[in-house]
Amino acid sequence: MAFGWIDEQAELRRRAGLRRSLRPRPADSPLLDLAGNDYLGLARHPEVTEGAALAARTWGAGATGSRLVSGTTELHAELERELAAFCGFEAALVFSSGYAANLAAVTALAPHGSLLVSDAGNHASLIDGCRLARGTTQVVAHADPEAVRKALGTYDGPAVAVCDTVFSVDGDAAPLPALARVCREHGAGLVVDDAHGFGVLGDGGRGAAHAAGLAGADDVVVTLTLSKSLGSQGGAVLGPARVIDHLVNAARTFIFDTGLAPAAAGAALAALRLLGREPQRAARARAVAARLHAGLTAAGLQAVRPDAAVVSVRAPSPEAAVRWAARCRAAGLAVGCFRPPSVPDGISRLRLTARADLSGEQIDHAVRVIGGSRPAAGETRP
Amino acid sequence: MAFGWIDEQAELRRRAGLRRSLRPRPADSPLLDLAGNDYLGLARHPEVTEGAALAARTWGAGATGSRLVSGTTELHAELERELAAFCGFEAALVFSSGYAANLAAVTALAPHGSLLVSDAGNHASLIDGCRLARGTTQVVAHADPEAVRKALGTYDGPAVAVCDTVFSVDGDAAPLPALARVCREHGAGLVVDDAHGFGVLGDGGRGAAHAAGLAGADDVVVTLTLSKSLGSQGGAVLGPARVIDHLVNAARTFIFDTGLAPAAAGAALAALRLLGREPQRAARARAVAARLHAGLTAAGLQAVRPDAAVVSVRAPSPEAAVRWAARCRAAGLAVGCFRPPSVPDGISRLRLTARADLSGEQIDHAVRVIGGSRPAAGETRP
Ligand SMILES: Cc1ncc(COP(=O)(O)O)c(C=O)c1O
Ligand SMILES: Cc1ncc(COP(=O)(O)O)c(C=O)c1O
Repeated sequence: MAFGWIDEQAELRRRAGLRRSLRPRPADSPLLDLAGNDYLGLARHPEVTEGAALAARTWGAGATGSRLVSGTTELHAELERELAAFCGFEAALVFSSGYAANLAAVTALAPHGSLLVSDAGNHASLIDGCRLARGTTQVVAHADPEAVRKALGTYDGPAVAVCDTVFSVDGDAAPLPALARVCREHGAGLVVDDAHGFGVLGDGGRGAAHAAGLAGADDVVVTLTLSKSLGSQGGAVLGPARVIDHLVNAARTFIFDTGLAPAAAGAALAALRLLGREPQRAARARAVAARLHAGLTAAGLQAVRPDAAVVSVRAPSPEAAVRWAARCRAAGLAVGCFRPPSVPDGISRLRLTARADLSGEQIDHAVRVIGGSRPAAGETRP
Repeated sequence: MAFGWIDEQAELRRRAGLRRSLRPRPADSPLLDLAGNDYLGLARHPEVTEGAALAARTWGAGATGSRLVSGTTELHAELERELAAFCGFEAALVFSSGYAANLAAVTALAPHGSLLVSDAGNHASLIDGCRLARGTTQVVAHADPEAVRKALGTYDGPAVAVCDTVFSVDGDAAPLPALARVCREHGAGLVVDDAHGFGVLGDGGRGAAHAAGLAGADDVVVTLTLSKSLGSQGGAVLGPARVIDHLVNAARTFIFDTGLAPAAAGAALAALRLLGREPQRAARARAVAARLHAGLTAAGLQAVRPDAAVVSVRAPSPEAAVRWAARCRAAGLAVGCFRPPSVPDGISRLRLTARADLSGEQIDHAVRVIGGSRPAAGETRP
C-alpha cells in the first residue's frame, strides 16, 4: 500500500522515545515562557503588533505574488533599506522565512564546480542549502577555523564557508574573526547565519558580524531571520549590492516564492525601529542568559555557557528530557526539549531562551523549577 | 576574489535580456492588476485584513518558535481543522510557505531507496523537494499518465508521483484521475501541489483533488499555499492523519522552521470562511479567465486555454516580453512577464491572472491594452 512504510517508522520512533506531537497553546497561556526565540520580548509589544495590523490594512493580507512579479511593495523596500543600514551592509533582501533566506544564499553563492565548507553543527536550513547547491560540500569539525583552512587548501575554484554565528542547539558562538581570516587567505566567501546573533550580539544588537568587524565586508554575506529577535516572521540576506542583485536573479526560493506578507514586514520594521531606540534590549537579553546559566550551574546542572541568549542543559536520555520538560510545564514553566534528530550529537537537552523582558525574580524562579524537577540519578528509560 | 564570478554571470544575463530587478509598488497603485495570484480578490478584503490584524493583537506578531516548541497556537490548530474539513481530508498541517510545504511533503514521503516520479513542468519547490529527498527521481513527460505508468513499472520499492494540479506557467491542469489510477495500480502514493487549483477548481473552490474525486483518499496527499486564493501567506499539506503525523516527526521544513505568523494564519482562516460563505467566487474566477482567454484569442494572440485562473500568452523573445509588459504597464495594466529560467521550455510569456472581482469591463479593457501593445511582427531583439 502507498505510504505503508510510515507505520513502521512511527513504531520505531515510539519505541525510541522520539515521537513528537503538537501542543497548541492558548492566547493567554499562564506559562512562563523560556522556550520561544522572542529574545527581545517584542513579539507581543504593542508597537510591533500594531505594525503588523497597520501593514495588513494598508497593503493587504498577502504580497499576492513573487517579489519579481507583484510581491514587492514599498514596505519591503523600506525594511530592506533599514535592515542593511542598521547592520552596516550595503544591501538586503527579504524572504518569506529564515529557512528560505538560507537556502537562497547558500545555493546561489555556490555555483557549479564550487566548494562549500560547512560546519558540522550547522542549522538544517544551511545543510539543505548545501545539499541543493551545485557545488561539492565538505563538512568540517564544529567551530574549527583550522579545519576550514584545510578544506579550502585542497581547492582551487570558487569556494564558500558556511556556518551559524550562534549555534541553535548549544548557543555557542562561531569564531568569526578567525573564520573570516581563513576565508580571505583563500579568496573564499563567508556566509554566516546570524539567526541567533542578530538583535542580541554586537553594538545595540547589530549582530555577530558587526561585532566581529565584518559588517560591510565585500566577501561576507549574513543571513538572518525576522522571526526571533524581531518577533515576526521572515528572513533576510545582507551583503554587497552585487551579491544581493545576484540573489534577485538566481535564488530559487526568492524567484519562485510569494513575497513576505506585509503584516510580517510591518511588524519586523516596527521591531527594528524599536531596537534602534532601545539598544539596551540586546545587552539585557545577554545578561538574562548569563544569570540563567549561573543559576543552573550553581544548582549543579550541566549547562553550556551562553555566548548569546540560548542556554542549553544536558539531559540523560530523550525520555528523561521529555519528562523533565513535562514536570517544568506542570510547574508553570515552558522550556524547549531537543531530541534526535534535532541535535547533531544525539544528546538530548532542555533548551532555554533568555528574554530581555524577564525579571530577576522570574529567572530565579525558573532556575528553581528546572533544578527541582531534574531527572533522578539513573532516570533514563520509561 | 570571493564572489568574483558573480559579475560575469550578471553580464551574461544582461546580454541575454534576462536581467531582473525589483519594482516596489505603492499601497495605492493605480494599475489594474492582472499579475498577482489573488484569484478570489481576498487579499485586501476587510474581513481578511481584519483577520490578520486581530490575530497579531491576540497572538503576537510572530509564532516565536518551531511549531514543535512554542510555535503552535490554537489558531494554527483551528486553521488546520477547517482547511482539512473544507477540502475533505482527514488532517492538515500548516507551514510558513507553500514552498516549505512542498519541500516537506516531497522529502518526508520519499524515504531512502524510494522512487520519485516528477512531471517535467513541476514547480521549483517540487523540483527542489525531489532533489533533497533521499530517493531517486525520474522526470517524466509533462501531464502524461502513461509516462508515469512506465516509470513506476520499472520499480519495486516505495514510490510516489509528484505534480502540480494546475501548472503555474501555462495554467493547464494535470490529468489527476488518470494519474491516481496509475499510482493505485502500482501501490504508489500521489502528491499533488494544488497551489493554483485550491479556491478556483472543485465545488466551491475545494480544489483539484476534490474535483477529481480524490479528497480523503488514503494514497493521495495535497499541498497548497495560503498565498494565492486565500490572499495571505503560508502553505499546508492535507492528507491521511498518519501522513500528517509523519510530517510532524520527519519534515525538516516543519521541524526546523518558525511557525507561520499568527497574522497570516488569521487572514487565511478569515478568507477560508469567506470562501465557504461565498462559494461563487471560485466559479467567477474561472469565468473571468475564460472571458480573458476568449478575448485574447479573438484578438489573434496565442493564449493557452485556461483550466483554472492563469492565462498565458506567448511572446517572441525575452526582450519582446519585457517590452510588451512595460507597454501594458504604461497603459495602466500590470501583467506578469515570465522568462528563463522561470519557464521550463525556454519560451517567454505574459502571464495573466484572472481575479473573481474583475468586472467584464475591466477584462475587456485588459484585452484591448494587451492586444494593442503586442510586439510588432519581427520584434524580438533590442
Ligand atoms: C540557526 C537558524 N537558522 C535559520 C532558522 C530558520 O529561520 P526561520 O524560522 O525564520 O525560517 C532557524 C530557526 O528557525 C535557526 O535556528
Ligand atoms: C505551483 C506552485 N507551488 C508552490 C508555490 C509556492 O508557494 P508559496 O509562494 O506560498 O511559497 C507556488 C508559488 O509561489 C506555485 O506557483
